[in-house]
Amino acid sequence: MALQFTIPEMTAYLDKVFPQVQGMFGIDRMDEDLLIMRLHNDERHLRPGGTVSGPAMFSLADVAAYVATMARIGPQALTVTTNCAIDFMRKPAAGVDLLAHARLLKLGRALSVTDVLLYSEGKPEPVARANLTYSIPPKG
Amino acid sequence: MALQFTIPEMTAYLDKVFPQVQGMFGIDRMDEDLLIMRLHNDERHLRPGGTVSGPAMFSLADVAAYVATMARIGPQALTVTTNCAIDFMRKPAAGVDLLAHARLLKLGRALSVTDVLLYSEGKPEPVARANLTYSIPPKG
Amino acid sequence: MALQFTIPEMTAYLDKVFPQVQGMFGIDRMDEDLLIMRLHNDERHLRPGGTVSGPAMFSLADVAAYVATMARIGPQALTVTTNCAIDFMRKPAAGVDLLAHARLLKLGRALSVTDVLLYSEGKPEPVARANLTYSIPPKG
Amino acid sequence: MALQFTIPEMTAYLDKVFPQVQGMFGIDRMDEDLLIMRLHNDERHLRPGGTVSGPAMFSLADVAAYVATMARIGPQALTVTTNCAIDFMRKPAAGVDLLAHARLLKLGRALSVTDVLLYSEGKPEPVARANLTYSIPPKG
Repeated sequence: MALQFTIPEMTAYLDKVFPQVQGMFGIDRMDEDLLIMRLHNDERHLRPGGTVSGPAMFSLADVAAYVATMARIGPQALTVTTNCAIDFMRKPAAGVDLLAHARLLKLGRALSVTDVLLYSEGKPEPVARANLTYSIPPKG
Repeated sequence: MALQFTIPEMTAYLDKVFPQVQGMFGIDRMDEDLLIMRLHNDERHLRPGGTVSGPAMFSLADVAAYVATMARIGPQALTVTTNCAIDFMRKPAAGVDLLAHARLLKLGRALSVTDVLLYSEGKPEPVARANLTYSIPPKG
Repeated sequence: MALQFTIPEMTAYLDKVFPQVQGMFGIDRMDEDLLIMRLHNDERHLRPGGTVSGPAMFSLADVAAYVATMARIGPQALTVTTNCAIDFMRKPAAGVDLLAHARLLKLGRALSVTDVLLYSEGKPEPVARANLTYSIPPKG
Repeated sequence: MALQFTIPEMTAYLDKVFPQVQGMFGIDRMDEDLLIMRLHNDERHLRPGGTVSGPAMFSLADVAAYVATMARIGPQALTVTTNCAIDFMRKPAAGVDLLAHARLLKLGRALSVTDVLLYSEGKPEPVARANLTYSIPPKG
């Protein structure tokens, strides 16, 4: 399915609708098969022991599923997360970015479902996995 | 099961282990049946449309499950979230705090399981529900 | 919200739409606050060690969420499960029925969300918890 | 990681530990990257409308995660599911087998995490996705 945004267009769109997280996330790759986003390494997200916090990992998975959905349906600000299940599997590496590999599994009229694997940059094994459902508003 | 912390002790403990979120959360009630925590209404967590963001709701559910577990096992900084499933059911009300009602369903040797309902303060219907598993480190 | 079925009506409805599981489940209580259903103790569902199998527990949680939804919206055969997260927390007791305590948390136009706790009859601690989302077909 | 079973050995093991489901499942492929299992098309699992039931899909995902774990750790009958989240995304095709593609994402000392995609045989799009955590008993 053709994408409705280029990476620079999506980046500008995110900055506009989520100004409070501007600069926190980047898009490395966005095509029909795979979206790769990164959470820039940032002291504010650290937990005891120096790892990225669970909420920061959730945020990255959530924004990746949002971008994977938006990329196909075009800008619809009222699209919202309805469900997420996330497994935290390994301690993220300190001092590197966190990468999300997101694949859209379903795009229906009312819902999208996205699978996400999270990696510490440069490490082969995922630190977390997540699946997210977004609710897509009916066309007006 | 007797609790290992009073509310002031738990608040001081959270400030120590999570200094980056100091002042973000409060504990309204903490006893063997129910824990009630609040996320103070704060502009930084807003999404388009003025609602509390999904990641902020996840954070509140996560810290509530952490506190519910810690309250029983005592301070163990290496206790980490291994799994969460969360349903976002209604739009949170603007301008009020978000409350988490957390109930510990299981405390095993290696895992705890907590159910959480999230409410906009003053509203009867939950805005979200979550269940979280924490992994408890083996005793040294 | 007023219920659209009595217990005998719901039992007859389940027998009609799910004839392959006739007699497997019973309804102990069905009102606006709480639905209690039971899975009759039955050798076919046993796992190694004599416990009820995970799939049988899933089935009970699934049918309980279905009944909790149907009870409010009336018979709509195309209502389907879209999502379930389930935690298996304790080994069910051998030789007794399994009970589901189900509470409907949300009934929207397109989705319902139900929380379920599963108990071995006569035991105070839940053996499992589940949350289920059902998709409700648009009115024709 | 080397596997501890061949396909015939695993099939024999499943028949022994789960005699009540003998013949229900088959293993198409089992190697370090991917496990493919099938649920034989069978009238007993049908829902209204002729689709495979949700509990039958859960069963297939559950046994696939079990086999993916056992294949690596060797026979340990007390290994049990602790958590599953499953999304039902499309109506399964009538009259064909259901296939599970399972990938083990984590094998720790105490837990394994497996991702599963379910397909109607011959169809490119998944009908469901699931993630399952198994608890592995401590070595005696």
